[in-house]
Amino acid sequence: MFKKILIANRGEIALRVIRTCKEMGINTVAVYSKADAESLHVRFADEAVCIGPAPSNESYLKIPNIIAAAEITNADAIHPGYGFLSENANFSKICAEHDIKFIGASSDMIDRMGDKATAKATMKEAGVPCVPGSEGILTDYDECLKTAKKIGFPVMLKATAGGGGKGMRAVWSEDKLEAAWESARQEAKAGFGNDGMYMEKLIEEPRHIEIQIVGDQTGKACHLSERDCSVQRRHQKLTEETPSPFMTNKLREKMGKAAVKAAEYIGYEGAGTVEFLVDKHRNFYFMEMNTRIQVEHPITEMVVDHDLIREQILVAAGVPISGKDYYPKLHSIECRINAEDPYNDFRPSPGKITTLHTPGGHGVRLDTHVYSGYIIPPNYDSMIAKLITTAQTREEAINKMKRALDEFVVEGIKTTIPFHRQLMDHPDYLAGNYTTKFMEDFVMDDKYKDEE
Amino acid sequence: MFKKILIANRGEIALRVIRTCKEMGINTVAVYSKADAESLHVRFADEAVCIGPAPSNESYLKIPNIIAAAEITNADAIHPGYGFLSENANFSKICAEHDIKFIGASSDMIDRMGDKATAKATMKEAGVPCVPGSEGILTDYDECLKTAKKIGFPVMLKATAGGGGKGMRAVWSEDKLEAAWESARQEAKAGFGNDGMYMEKLIEEPRHIEIQIVGDQTGKACHLSERDCSVQRRHQKLTEETPSPFMTNKLREKMGKAAVKAAEYIGYEGAGTVEFLVDKHRNFYFMEMNTRIQVEHPITEMVVDHDLIREQILVAAGVPISGKDYYPKLHSIECRINAEDPYNDFRPSPGKITTLHTPGGHGVRLDTHVYSGYIIPPNYDSMIAKLITTAQTREEAINKMKRALDEFVVEGIKTTIPFHRQLMDHPDYLAGNYTTKFMEDFVMDDKYKDEE
Repeated sequence: MFKKILIANRGEIALRVIRTCKEMGINTVAVYSKADAESLHVRFADEAVCIGPAPSNESYLKIPNIIAAAEITNADAIHPGYGFLSENANFSKICAEHDIKFIGASSDMIDRMGDKATAKATMKEAGVPCVPGSEGILTDYDECLKTAKKIGFPVMLKATAGGGGKGMRAVWSEDKLEAAWESARQEAKAGFGNDGMYMEKLIEEPRHIEIQIVGDQTGKACHLSERDCSVQRRHQKLTEETPSPFMTNKLREKMGKAAVKAAEYIGYEGAGTVEFLVDKHRNFYFMEMNTRIQVEHPITEMVVDHDLIREQILVAAGVPISGKDYYPKLHSIECRINAEDPYNDFRPSPGKITTLHTPGGHGVRLDTHVYSGYIIPPNYDSMIAKLITTAQTREEAINKMKRALDEFVVEGIKTTIPFHRQLMDHPDYLAGNYTTKFMEDFVMDDKYKDEE
Repeated sequence: MFKKILIANRGEIALRVIRTCKEMGINTVAVYSKADAESLHVRFADEAVCIGPAPSNESYLKIPNIIAAAEITNADAIHPGYGFLSENANFSKICAEHDIKFIGASSDMIDRMGDKATAKATMKEAGVPCVPGSEGILTDYDECLKTAKKIGFPVMLKATAGGGGKGMRAVWSEDKLEAAWESARQEAKAGFGNDGMYMEKLIEEPRHIEIQIVGDQTGKACHLSERDCSVQRRHQKLTEETPSPFMTNKLREKMGKAAVKAAEYIGYEGAGTVEFLVDKHRNFYFMEMNTRIQVEHPITEMVVDHDLIREQILVAAGVPISGKDYYPKLHSIECRINAEDPYNDFRPSPGKITTLHTPGGHGVRLDTHVYSGYIIPPNYDSMIAKLITTAQTREEAINKMKRALDEFVVEGIKTTIPFHRQLMDHPDYLAGNYTTKFMEDFVMDDKYKDEE
């Protein structure tokens, strides 16, 4: 087992990893930028090394500084957390060259899964369902029609140079295809000077449902069921839950099997997540694989009674997994509490937390690196806490989340607490009836505003 | 279901009950003394009524004031928490007379279990093992010898007027009995002017292990396994865990069955605890039954995934239990954090909490009513928080407790955090090798002292 792990990250995930290391009797090294000197991950680690100024490029992303910190402190492994260098193939390689175990995927694996086109091609080989579409650019309308018939309506026509919805058409039947083809090409030509078009199957009422997997060094993998992360705003997840209210036992079996197949096909080592889009007919399609721990991992921990950071460390140390899959025994929800003003387009709200009162009690977990008096630096992402509630049923977990959000007091800055509180009252959310489009129509109600 | 519950208590248990009521959609009424106006249970309840000045006799124990508060606010039930009026037969009766459901035992039940002699006699009738002993005072040495032979050595001779160990003799074999009889009688005569003696079986290496039970209105009861509360100081529990490190599956079956038998024999309704002494041979003896929720109930909640306050409310509303018993799937430990100075004979340390930083993360639960700036009144018991850690194994739960205690910062007053931190390093505690005598030899080590 490792004697000393350096955590190449900051914020709640750095603290999260330090906590598990402590519990496993492993010494820890924190690294920090000058902006984070007062951070809890620095205080709770056994050692701490300053690796540069506030900008990430000069500290948390600066590989030589982190490797130097590991060598000075004699760390035998590095945990990268999420973000920053966690999916950087070069960093993984350099760690290996320095005989420091990178607690994550090998550089090869990251390369293979990091590029979306390569990842999709690999998954197709492995037999994992991917969104069907044209092979590259459509040469003419004839190929367009053939492709549409092959993958089946509805389809999406997309301009290869497109963006912002321009040169994009959803087509629901054959008789509308030719007109859409012409108008989309004209729009693309006018907008981007390039009328190249490709086609993908249109995913109806898409849900973002991901499968947590763990693979070991023997090539064996298992899954730990799903997380539903469909409540997103501009591709940023806001809240997650497990089980997914849209899940069936049959679909879980199929998606779990596909995710394990994906992991085993590439010989994946460590904790990872296979992200899928699921349409309203419960067809699922590979989106991407994250070769690291994810922000929302705690909800899985709560329903399967396992510590995923511990699993990462064990697997990295060569301990084989049992191979059995894990199924949710409870229901768990996570709300990401960000220093953002939901009443002002979720604009970041860094600054000093003047008062902090955190919720607690039965079924409430809080992962946070902030405290009363903490100054949120403007340099990093705005998440300040993850509030997780767990109960026997979804309804109970939601009710628990409501009361926990009501207890949560953060003064001095704006937070997304009012957003989550409103979400927990939303009839579609309560019905489990939401897709990745959910936030498009969401309008904040003043009645959830903090009293000032 | 109840529409509004008044919580006739204060501190963490009042908050605990309010939380579950909120999650169940039940309105809440807090009552408070003038000393508790700034308490969180007052802030988080839907309504709050001041019921008198600080001394408990004039507020939390003053039945007319509490009944008046319930009538004014139109509460249809009262939850008494623990302590105060929770085992007061008269209060239970008065609630019934006012058509307010008392969420606890009936006055009859409390009477039957509240008096130790009556409780023991009832349990004997029910066939629950009790500590064997003489029927009252031993008339002469002849009866003394006969009784000793009947219950078996070792035995305890005790002066009926005794106390503080005077007139008390542990006797391990027949040849030592007569001398002990004579000397104990002389000592009792000299010390108390009364040489009346009685005899009980001596419990070797006694452990305090209790069984949580729930009974419903149909007369059915189930158990939720045990809690080991042997780490006590002057009969005050300091830390508890489940499963007991001393437990075997066979013993759990036997004790669980006995506890359910006890509950069903008296037609017990609600959550209750049957406390047993267990000797080194794993014989167990009924000690007493607590007809209320207990301080240490959260560790049971954590290992069986049930909310016991919710169960109390459901049962009080007439919902029948399933009848199946619950077994621990995980290991959970509770440390009672008291405002006491462990380096000064655990003397109470009321005052203002100037800084509070609470631990969190995976497997950590905190139940507390205090906050940064809170002033602990000197009028009530000194518990300020219950820290609970839960993990797959006992070792992991202990390691989690260590790191959670290390993260816990309470400034401005003294707390028992250093005591618990030392306990978690104690070789006998780590080995699970402790009895109710454990604290007799415990000496605080300066190395656990807070830095000042």
